[in-house]
Amino acid sequence: MNARSPHLKHTPIEIAEQLAAQFAETAAARDKQGGNPKAERDLIRESGLLGLSIPTEYGGQGADWQTIFKTIQTIARVDSSLAHVYGFHHLLIATVQLFSEAEQYGKWFEQSAKENLFWGNTLNPLDKRTTATQISETEYIFHGDKSFCSGSMDSDILLCSGFNQDGKLLIGVIPTQREGVSFLGDWNNMGQRQTDSGTSHFEQVKVLKNELLLNPGPLSTPYSSLRPLIAQLIFVHMFLGVAEGAFDVAKQTVQSQKAWSKSLAEEAVNDPFTQKHFAEFYVQLESVRLLADKAIHTLQKAWHVGADLTAEQRGEVSIAIATAKIASTNTSLYITQNIFQVMGARATTAKLNLDRFWRNVRTQTLHDPVDYKYQEIGEWVLTGKVPDPSFYS
Amino acid sequence: MNARSPHLKHTPIEIAEQLAAQFAETAAARDKQGGNPKAERDLIRESGLLGLSIPTEYGGQGADWQTIFKTIQTIARVDSSLAHVYGFHHLLIATVQLFSEAEQYGKWFEQSAKENLFWGNTLNPLDKRTTATQISETEYIFHGDKSFCSGSMDSDILLCSGFNQDGKLLIGVIPTQREGVSFLGDWNNMGQRQTDSGTSHFEQVKVLKNELLLNPGPLSTPYSSLRPLIAQLIFVHMFLGVAEGAFDVAKQTVQSQKAWSKSLAEEAVNDPFTQKHFAEFYVQLESVRLLADKAIHTLQKAWHVGADLTAEQRGEVSIAIATAKIASTNTSLYITQNIFQVMGARATTAKLNLDRFWRNVRTQTLHDPVDYKYQEIGEWVLTGKVPDPSFYS
Amino acid sequence: MNARSPHLKHTPIEIAEQLAAQFAETAAARDKQGGNPKAERDLIRESGLLGLSIPTEYGGQGADWQTIFKTIQTIARVDSSLAHVYGFHHLLIATVQLFSEAEQYGKWFEQSAKENLFWGNTLNPLDKRTTATQISETEYIFHGDKSFCSGSMDSDILLCSGFNQDGKLLIGVIPTQREGVSFLGDWNNMGQRQTDSGTSHFEQVKVLKNELLLNPGPLSTPYSSLRPLIAQLIFVHMFLGVAEGAFDVAKQTVQSQKAWSKSLAEEAVNDPFTQKHFAEFYVQLESVRLLADKAIHTLQKAWHVGADLTAEQRGEVSIAIATAKIASTNTSLYITQNIFQVMGARATTAKLNLDRFWRNVRTQTLHDPVDYKYQEIGEWVLTGKVPDPSFYS
Amino acid sequence: MNARSPHLKHTPIEIAEQLAAQFAETAAARDKQGGNPKAERDLIRESGLLGLSIPTEYGGQGADWQTIFKTIQTIARVDSSLAHVYGFHHLLIATVQLFSEAEQYGKWFEQSAKENLFWGNTLNPLDKRTTATQISETEYIFHGDKSFCSGSMDSDILLCSGFNQDGKLLIGVIPTQREGVSFLGDWNNMGQRQTDSGTSHFEQVKVLKNELLLNPGPLSTPYSSLRPLIAQLIFVHMFLGVAEGAFDVAKQTVQSQKAWSKSLAEEAVNDPFTQKHFAEFYVQLESVRLLADKAIHTLQKAWHVGADLTAEQRGEVSIAIATAKIASTNTSLYITQNIFQVMGARATTAKLNLDRFWRNVRTQTLHDPVDYKYQEIGEWVLTGKVPDPSFYS
Repeated sequence: MNARSPHLKHTPIEIAEQLAAQFAETAAARDKQGGNPKAERDLIRESGLLGLSIPTEYGGQGADWQTIFKTIQTIARVDSSLAHVYGFHHLLIATVQLFSEAEQYGKWFEQSAKENLFWGNTLNPLDKRTTATQISETEYIFHGDKSFCSGSMDSDILLCSGFNQDGKLLIGVIPTQREGVSFLGDWNNMGQRQTDSGTSHFEQVKVLKNELLLNPGPLSTPYSSLRPLIAQLIFVHMFLGVAEGAFDVAKQTVQSQKAWSKSLAEEAVNDPFTQKHFAEFYVQLESVRLLADKAIHTLQKAWHVGADLTAEQRGEVSIAIATAKIASTNTSLYITQNIFQVMGARATTAKLNLDRFWRNVRTQTLHDPVDYKYQEIGEWVLTGKVPDPSFYS
Repeated sequence: MNARSPHLKHTPIEIAEQLAAQFAETAAARDKQGGNPKAERDLIRESGLLGLSIPTEYGGQGADWQTIFKTIQTIARVDSSLAHVYGFHHLLIATVQLFSEAEQYGKWFEQSAKENLFWGNTLNPLDKRTTATQISETEYIFHGDKSFCSGSMDSDILLCSGFNQDGKLLIGVIPTQREGVSFLGDWNNMGQRQTDSGTSHFEQVKVLKNELLLNPGPLSTPYSSLRPLIAQLIFVHMFLGVAEGAFDVAKQTVQSQKAWSKSLAEEAVNDPFTQKHFAEFYVQLESVRLLADKAIHTLQKAWHVGADLTAEQRGEVSIAIATAKIASTNTSLYITQNIFQVMGARATTAKLNLDRFWRNVRTQTLHDPVDYKYQEIGEWVLTGKVPDPSFYS
Repeated sequence: MNARSPHLKHTPIEIAEQLAAQFAETAAARDKQGGNPKAERDLIRESGLLGLSIPTEYGGQGADWQTIFKTIQTIARVDSSLAHVYGFHHLLIATVQLFSEAEQYGKWFEQSAKENLFWGNTLNPLDKRTTATQISETEYIFHGDKSFCSGSMDSDILLCSGFNQDGKLLIGVIPTQREGVSFLGDWNNMGQRQTDSGTSHFEQVKVLKNELLLNPGPLSTPYSSLRPLIAQLIFVHMFLGVAEGAFDVAKQTVQSQKAWSKSLAEEAVNDPFTQKHFAEFYVQLESVRLLADKAIHTLQKAWHVGADLTAEQRGEVSIAIATAKIASTNTSLYITQNIFQVMGARATTAKLNLDRFWRNVRTQTLHDPVDYKYQEIGEWVLTGKVPDPSFYS
Repeated sequence: MNARSPHLKHTPIEIAEQLAAQFAETAAARDKQGGNPKAERDLIRESGLLGLSIPTEYGGQGADWQTIFKTIQTIARVDSSLAHVYGFHHLLIATVQLFSEAEQYGKWFEQSAKENLFWGNTLNPLDKRTTATQISETEYIFHGDKSFCSGSMDSDILLCSGFNQDGKLLIGVIPTQREGVSFLGDWNNMGQRQTDSGTSHFEQVKVLKNELLLNPGPLSTPYSSLRPLIAQLIFVHMFLGVAEGAFDVAKQTVQSQKAWSKSLAEEAVNDPFTQKHFAEFYVQLESVRLLADKAIHTLQKAWHVGADLTAEQRGEVSIAIATAKIASTNTSLYITQNIFQVMGARATTAKLNLDRFWRNVRTQTLHDPVDYKYQEIGEWVLTGKVPDPSFYS
């Protein structure tokens, strides 16, 4: 952790908990407001957590995936927008490691570690409006729009992408301040409202060839194809964190309530129906926690294998993460919907803004259809075929 | 229907459909705004539908319950806040019929039919802050606050309530303009945002004895105890309407979509998973529609019986409505949550505001805990005991 | 009803209830035994109920479908094997009406009504082992095996089927005693154990051309294609009846039990969890009862239309029945599995043989995959296309 | 492992797999037959696995709980009756360790290890018909019946129990051959048919004081109260094993099937609905596997703590095991019911006897009501109170 960090004596999880405590105070209000959470993003910068995923040789902390995912989950308990952009920062660091070579990414990492750079994302492979045209041996022009660019605003360094004339996806890394780059600030959705997942506009933006991740390039090998799986596992920890946050609020709320007039119990905590609801929540949460842990463990093992990772080994990671994705999707929707059942009508006041838990997971769980996670697992069970790598599998 | 109605040649359902078409244009925007939907309430006044439940001898239309509930459901498809206050208007008309005698309510009904008066509600039996003190043979003073007063603002005539010193609930009918009556306008909740379900304040409000519903009085007989059941059946039709509205939006959205890239089908309408989701929605909707119809039929029969209604007969109505309440609660939550699964991420844009379906039913389904509807039915199945009448059963 | 009936003064439902009461005494034991329930089949013959579906002009009772299905459901409450073969008897009567003309079937009906003939089934369109070869202008030879021939043993008159050399399905009606017809008695499955749904063998069986249902022939028109829908609606009433039977047993069992030691209640009937389970059963049962009623109503209407029935009108019947099929499948599996949850360990004694409820519906619900009922409804919701008529839709 | 074992070079899991392979050949047939599986019990004796839980100082193998539970699960995949009595053998070994002191149980363990004794159970604390009367300083007479005595027949050594005149439960260990001990062989239930869980009869059976487990005695301390938790965790592994066994059968069956005629796929393994069913099975199985592992880990830790175990620490074990119990109950019922959905009608043939999976878990999951496992967890979540130790918690 760099010297600017005020948290030198704390573990990453403790630091994440401190951040979460700060974010919690304003999370309900900021959700309504939407827009860019500049102040909170700066707190993340100052926390030193952005260096977690950067290898120690470049000045980062070289944390394992367990640590990284748990910090994401911790933040998601109170604010899944910040967890999202914070998680994607680490995803982008990993992307560069997987899609390029150390000679290329070394300097980016050193600068990032030293200056606590926040990485942003304009990589949406389904939106093909941004073109990449080579204009010289060493230069390309990126031009056009791209949607769903989470964490792009207020970023310091940007993963950009465009399609060349052959329909090939080119991915590069540039300073966010590069001339011609702008963001429309048009993200206004029902959930994940402070992720700035709006449209980026590239107006004739110059990208150097040595800023492009060409070797080995995107999804070029089983190892580089770990990238989308890391993204999926970030979602898992966001969903899990949100579900845990909702569970905690519901628990605290119920602990001071009387039971309904027809109950055999006086206090809500002794009402059989209320108890059963909480047990259902708990059993599901425990399952997801364990499935997420197993997925991390599988990923970490594959990460250590490196470039020699086989398609089959990568497939195992894919299945473990898809399993956790299904369970965390279902559980987070179930819990964020049903906490109201136990808390009752007064919990619907806009002041508390408790529907944000549901709105956040309902939005983020649509990143790609969970039906096709079932499809992938079912196919694998029945035929042994692991999912073909793609930006969604 | 009175002479002012511009809809003379249409059936009540057709009129409700026309209103719904108008409300639909602004429903998403008005939901965000919250507050009092004055313009839309006036459209309801002008439609003539407020007279549906008023017997023909007083200038109303004397519609049957089937017609009344179907107009509520029709409006709920696009705007469950307006469905709520519109439904409660009819509930209050019924309340007066059940809690008092024709000699007393006749003049209110005549005036209501003639002037299209919109009835409002300040009856929340769980909030005991408003006191009712008799100050003379013929006069009472109502004083204090009361929460959850849906439809009170912009009403013309008001059902008011207070507890006397013996803890007895007194219910009266007064003009909303009566001196001392005010509304705090403090309703700001995650759903049902235009129901004005905030706090009313009674500042030393004079209520005449002959404005009180003393004979037979609230829940005094099995017949008068139909009142809370009518309220519950209004909720059923609100939940059903919202679920149908959400279903329609999802269907239209999917009809123009491509299937996910891994699907065996090209078009979303041919994707097996998408088809199965819609079938699940449809089967549930059909069940709720039939359960609601049966409940109406049972209520209508009991309504016709009148004052001789036995506790057992009233119990049958109670069970039929509780059954429909459980099914409509579960179905409306299921559908409003899962429409997103089939529509995908783009459906989360705030512009469409499609989470309002879920927020509305999630809020309104908390009126009283559905767990205790299960409890009532289970007890009746096992012991034959029908639910004791209360303002929630 | 013919003169031999001892039940002349009772309604069909009352007669079915009397039969059910008799069957109930031995149902558990006969389930274990399997094989042909000759004595009970004779009681059905004697009851007069076999004539319900035969039009009055042929000496039958010309009952409406409501009556016929309710007698099936009544018997299914205690014995779904007998309900099956009894229901199929009426299906076969209907088949003949739909696939042939009155001139042809008149004499069969007259004889059936007069002699209380029990119709049996060897029509399994998926099993193509039985061939039909025309050997002269007026004669065919049917030869080969056919599986899943429910109700064939101990029948008096038989619907037989075979494929000719062009792959066309020919269906005929012959006396079960016709030379060359035999049954292997090889039905021994986990459920529906007394339906004799084993293999039939046709050894060079002569079938006359005027015994073949050639005009209009199988599934030749929307109207004639009502046949498989009637079969599906028989299943619905079997599933519903079994679920009701299981529900009744569970209710009676629980009514004399103490609650579990940790319950807040003394008696099981007052235990909140037990009450909730029964409410869940009840709400589902009510839904299925209403969906089944609506399906009957839709079928009855189409039945009255007759040969002019359009594909679209037939499609409506198909959707209503598929909806009821899905709900009754899910409900019957849910209830027959979960009655044990409320009854406890002692209910597992083989003496009571209460698993037969689950085994019966688990077996019969596999007639054709319910997933494709969802598929049909989903497709219809999204595209308006009604299911193509087949022996399963 | 003792010298008689033919499996000396194999791990316990491998030995369990070999046993399972042998049991699988006759499991379907033996289920129908019921009664005592003498030959298979002898194979277990010969396998050496009965010594797994006996500490090495007494000649046993001192295996950890992970190993023991995994052998139970392995056997349960093919035969949950044998898994049951085999698991209960280890439970009884543990019971003696928890309820008495080494000086007392040492000789039993030595003999058990040396002679591969199979322990049997006549401990049902809910059945109070067996009395224990002290007739001298050193002798007691046990007399009466007791139900649900799983694994008592063909056992070598018996845990017996009776209530003394003060209502205190006394538990002893005697040779099964002790004069006066007999078994009625009256177990004939719908599932777990070869567990001999019938009635034991004690006819004036002499039990010596030094055969009684008096110090510290049953459930006398948090540590000794681990006993019922071990029983519950045995059930978890039985349910998990059965679910895995059913899953395997379904998978193999589907792998050679064609898809339904209306499917977009040719082969069943490519049918989207079939794939989704298997994915649902798999996700649930993975969750239960992980919850079971965590529960074992928690138990093992508490087991190592020994007599100093606090009530709070014991409570943690209780919650972990209750969580796994709920999930394994639901999952095993879900999978054993729904494998039929994917396999289709032909899977119902009695020859395959595939309903035994469901019958076995449906029976065994009723040992104590799962509703009250939810209740315990809910209460703990909301109040922090861990479940009071009892023979069911």
